[in-house]
Amino acid sequence: MKELRNLSLVMDFYELTMSQCYFNQDKNQEVVFDLFYRNNPDNGGLCLFCGLEQVIEYVKNLHFEKEDIEYLRSLQMFSNDFLDYLSTIHFTGDIYAIPEGTPVFPHEPLLRVKAPIIEAQLIETALLLALNHQTLIATKARRIVQASEGRAVMEFGARRAHNFDAAIYGARAAYIAGCVGSATTYAGKEYGLPVLGTMAHSFIQSFSTEYDAFLYYAKTYPNNCTLLIDTYSTLKSGIKNAIRVAKDYLEPNGYRLKGVRIDSGDMAYLSKQVRKELDQNGMQDCGIVVSNSLDEYVIESLIHQQGAKIDSFGVGENLICSKNSPVFGGVYKLVAIEKDGEMIPKIKISDNVEKVTNPGMKTVYRIYDHETGMAQADLLALVDEKFDENEDLTIYHPMSRWKYKVIPGGTYELRELLVPIFKRGQVVYQCPSLDGIREYSKRELDTIWEEIKRFAYPQEYYVDLTKKLLDLKLQLLNEHK
Amino acid sequence: MKELRNLSLVMDFYELTMSQCYFNQDKNQEVVFDLFYRNNPDNGGLCLFCGLEQVIEYVKNLHFEKEDIEYLRSLQMFSNDFLDYLSTIHFTGDIYAIPEGTPVFPHEPLLRVKAPIIEAQLIETALLLALNHQTLIATKARRIVQASEGRAVMEFGARRAHNFDAAIYGARAAYIAGCVGSATTYAGKEYGLPVLGTMAHSFIQSFSTEYDAFLYYAKTYPNNCTLLIDTYSTLKSGIKNAIRVAKDYLEPNGYRLKGVRIDSGDMAYLSKQVRKELDQNGMQDCGIVVSNSLDEYVIESLIHQQGAKIDSFGVGENLICSKNSPVFGGVYKLVAIEKDGEMIPKIKISDNVEKVTNPGMKTVYRIYDHETGMAQADLLALVDEKFDENEDLTIYHPMSRWKYKVIPGGTYELRELLVPIFKRGQVVYQCPSLDGIREYSKRELDTIWEEIKRFAYPQEYYVDLTKKLLDLKLQLLNEHK
Repeated sequence: MKELRNLSLVMDFYELTMSQCYFNQDKNQEVVFDLFYRNNPDNGGLCLFCGLEQVIEYVKNLHFEKEDIEYLRSLQMFSNDFLDYLSTIHFTGDIYAIPEGTPVFPHEPLLRVKAPIIEAQLIETALLLALNHQTLIATKARRIVQASEGRAVMEFGARRAHNFDAAIYGARAAYIAGCVGSATTYAGKEYGLPVLGTMAHSFIQSFSTEYDAFLYYAKTYPNNCTLLIDTYSTLKSGIKNAIRVAKDYLEPNGYRLKGVRIDSGDMAYLSKQVRKELDQNGMQDCGIVVSNSLDEYVIESLIHQQGAKIDSFGVGENLICSKNSPVFGGVYKLVAIEKDGEMIPKIKISDNVEKVTNPGMKTVYRIYDHETGMAQADLLALVDEKFDENEDLTIYHPMSRWKYKVIPGGTYELRELLVPIFKRGQVVYQCPSLDGIREYSKRELDTIWEEIKRFAYPQEYYVDLTKKLLDLKLQLLNEHK
Repeated sequence: MKELRNLSLVMDFYELTMSQCYFNQDKNQEVVFDLFYRNNPDNGGLCLFCGLEQVIEYVKNLHFEKEDIEYLRSLQMFSNDFLDYLSTIHFTGDIYAIPEGTPVFPHEPLLRVKAPIIEAQLIETALLLALNHQTLIATKARRIVQASEGRAVMEFGARRAHNFDAAIYGARAAYIAGCVGSATTYAGKEYGLPVLGTMAHSFIQSFSTEYDAFLYYAKTYPNNCTLLIDTYSTLKSGIKNAIRVAKDYLEPNGYRLKGVRIDSGDMAYLSKQVRKELDQNGMQDCGIVVSNSLDEYVIESLIHQQGAKIDSFGVGENLICSKNSPVFGGVYKLVAIEKDGEMIPKIKISDNVEKVTNPGMKTVYRIYDHETGMAQADLLALVDEKFDENEDLTIYHPMSRWKYKVIPGGTYELRELLVPIFKRGQVVYQCPSLDGIREYSKRELDTIWEEIKRFAYPQEYYVDLTKKLLDLKLQLLNEHK
């Protein structure tokens, strides 16, 4: 593994070919890009936005080292003038974004870049890949945490992750979404999240007997002893040896067996049998951990249909790869471009109505109901629009003047979701601690109605437009006709 | 982004908790682990093994820095003696592996580790995640390349990859599998693979007219000009402006338009219409690139059912995330353990027959038919078994003495697939160049029958056992009864 890496060149090559064109035409005017997505993974009702801290690091660091420039020169596509320019480039623009851990919805800007077009293009790929990945994993982890209804969920997926970063940043995203910790030790060191894990089947196999393996483990970790009981047979040997070690060694020395883990077989049946045996031996405080091919649906079913006796879940590939829905489709679209000192709104037309973009330099407000404190809808507005919460607020369907809703003055509060991250190239945002993000996320999720958080056919959350924005959009659509 | 990283701690925490137990019991005997997998992704017939070079880097680098040790100390689970031991640890064992780019099959050891148990455990997670990821992507990319029947496939997926490493190593794996290059510039610099890309829709939108955008691009890259023609309307404006720029600027200056790219709409219809217009204008040499939600099935259908006129494919999320099948399930299982100077074979029992492991220190041979040069089967054997190619070879189904096949002496050749990578902690393997791996992979794929490479219900390739290995396995199974 390379010890030193400047990731600035993790960019699609076309960012560079386009940039040389802009450079040659002396056409580096300011533009505005929105980063947003169109569909929730897993047909869910929301996502958890995640990955902003890594975006900030990338943008702050953006620069090309001598060897990067020499590599680009070797391709014989770039002029010396352009390469000289690249060798001094850094980000000088503004970025606004929604804080990490916020529940977000399709079609709203999660992040907005205003910068000279070359800089705005050069950061595109890294912004997308960092946010797409962590948002995907946080969104999936949130579903699994929700299904677990307060039981601990542990992220155990590193070995199936799409390489090192996916394991590390995936663990981070999973923790933000409510997992209690991860098995990925590096993530524990880097982000201070709890690291978890006890033993593998190979550990049990490496001793002459299962009893010996359990005993030696208990001697090393008497305070924190969770034993893997399915190597030979969960019911015929594993649980019996675990109880023997508790009675022979732990309890006489003033300790308690903390837990047993089951990693194969039928989780519902086995957990109920194991619970019974533990309880019969006065070990009501010994927890049961399961960890075999779990996802939100299996967990929901184990808890509600099968009455499984499970205290915590270790989740692997279904979480760390978001296996059922492994792609988060964030996109980065041009919405305005400066001409003669003025920002001209741009729209991207498509035969597919869902793919028509919302033009102009916009922001997003979340509308909270005064009485319940719950989020009612999100509202996209042009940045210069002003609102008075004492007045009625009319919000419009993103494609139609005839579908609107009036929210009476005095019944709502607006909160602007996009906050300043970079101004003129300088970071103006203090990233919260990981625990801070995690707690914020939990509070924010509490303001989202359960109907939106349902797994199957969730209610659609409104992301509407102001009259002014809708009028602009329809006008631009007409001009393109 | 951190500039400096030692990835040694990208390990499941249980590797460390187990290691302390071994350390405390002074129980660091030699063991053998096999790394293998059980099912081909996408219900395919084979995988392309990939990621070994990164595994070598990880193992060679394995060490804990002062800050790693201090982090572990802060968890208050590890003794000072154990931490002192960890602070000097490095890998001292042997590793054998199948060369990258080799077609591989379920249940055969792709990599074998023989090392003191602590070292063998500490490298587990990284071995699995590096090999699982790159093998997954190479396997998917190979399918897409196969479907394209000689047309170029370009890897365009960075923005949907599961973070930076997934984009970089995914590009590497895709190139090994036959893609002609990648859009990920970093991978080009790091691995010397061709980087590709031209322009985004935002580039077109940033000019007053599509014609201007094309013209300025053509002026910058007259020799290498591929134009994106679907921003407004592929047929009504894009192809017309592309042809105008070819006629107005490129051809009068002695250049030709290299290609046009279509990124939305119906690829079959549009490509045929665009081909017709290009041909009518004497531009038979202008290629058509398409790049919208492609995978092996869409490409196969475009070529065979719709007669699309496409010269190359840009493939994104379906390749870089292996979207339909995003997990490669490599596992790492203990197969032998030293006791009193002797290696004792170990078996992992499971109610699920498919999950019973093949015990002992083994190697893998590929059996080639003399006459055709084609691979007939793979054979797992104990390392000390000898073969004479002039004698009949009997190979056995992995679970049954009654299902076997006799290959007549003189009709076959054996090639041992596992080659030495580390001996006593030292690298003894020279990694081939990336192009070398790519060419080797192509040659090896040519020795696999088409029936195995079919997408739907491929013929199963035999991975059989020698009599001696099968006898050992059945004996150990009986002992466990």
